[in-house]
Amino acid sequence: MRNLYVGLLHFPVYNKNQQIITSAVTNFDIHDISRASKTFGVENYFIITPNKGQHRVVGQVISHWQEGFGSTYNTDRKTALDSTFLIDSLDDVITLIKEKDKKEPLVIATSANKDDKYHHLTISSLKETLKTDGEPILLVFGTGYGMVLEQLPQIKYMLEPIYGPTDYNHLSVRSAVSIYLYSLKG
Amino acid sequence: MRNLYVGLLHFPVYNKNQQIITSAVTNFDIHDISRASKTFGVENYFIITPNKGQHRVVGQVISHWQEGFGSTYNTDRKTALDSTFLIDSLDDVITLIKEKDKKEPLVIATSANKDDKYHHLTISSLKETLKTDGEPILLVFGTGYGMVLEQLPQIKYMLEPIYGPTDYNHLSVRSAVSIYLYSLKG
Repeated sequence: MRNLYVGLLHFPVYNKNQQIITSAVTNFDIHDISRASKTFGVENYFIITPNKGQHRVVGQVISHWQEGFGSTYNTDRKTALDSTFLIDSLDDVITLIKEKDKKEPLVIATSANKDDKYHHLTISSLKETLKTDGEPILLVFGTGYGMVLEQLPQIKYMLEPIYGPTDYNHLSVRSAVSIYLYSLKG
Repeated sequence: MRNLYVGLLHFPVYNKNQQIITSAVTNFDIHDISRASKTFGVENYFIITPNKGQHRVVGQVISHWQEGFGSTYNTDRKTALDSTFLIDSLDDVITLIKEKDKKEPLVIATSANKDDKYHHLTISSLKETLKTDGEPILLVFGTGYGMVLEQLPQIKYMLEPIYGPTDYNHLSVRSAVSIYLYSLKG
């Protein structure tokens, strides 16, 4: 069985006007995705941002629940966050996983829309792959208005989008992570 | 095909100390669940709270995106919220659906744990039921530390919990709604 990792990328992403920005980490991205990752057996959840101010703020939130008052107030929350890490870049995530698992991870991005430049894996094929032995899998989710893929050559594959029965297709990243993890590991 | 509705109940629910309270509506509960409901073809999403102060605050958020600056700034958000309603009680939700669909809805609660006092439907059986004709289905999600079921005789069935491969089972309500809707309508 392969190890599964989740990364939430805050740079480089687009804003509404197709400018390249560093998006802000939201509190619910920390908690909801940590809880879903823990529930579905993800090894580590990486919050990826180069912004040092964000590291300080998000670090305070995590340590509140890990070591501060929150750690005794709500132990389930403490458990949820014990595998969550703040990290500067996608390259740093890859280096860390490589050190831990002795194998370079396969980096797979998710997207609400298909991009013909990539090979799109189906959810069911990735679910089967996860049951086999081999390189660890790193699922990367974008924030803002999507990842700047041209600047992310580490990403080799895409995972098929999530569709409902409607034309509306604007799930929050928290919903998307939850649905993908459930579909892959539930 | 049956109509599907979602309700997010803020009273009566338990707090951490098993006291019966009215929980606060969070901003992410408004947006994430509206977006997931719209994506998966839910007729209406009802935010259920008797607290008038909450109606005022949440009403302002919704109208910002429906009619205010937000409605032109982000039209996807406007669409997401056009089927979201604030309402006082579960009885009011049932009355409203009955008026609209001319049939009393089947009220089904979700829970992270099985409760032997209820018949638990599997996700796959409810998915099939939704494809048949018949009463509309109202899925009710609790907030805080769970619904006070003894005070909610309107709830006739429970939906099976969501399980991952771990013992940890503390998804956010936003994750749980997203996973259930995807499993039922995705």
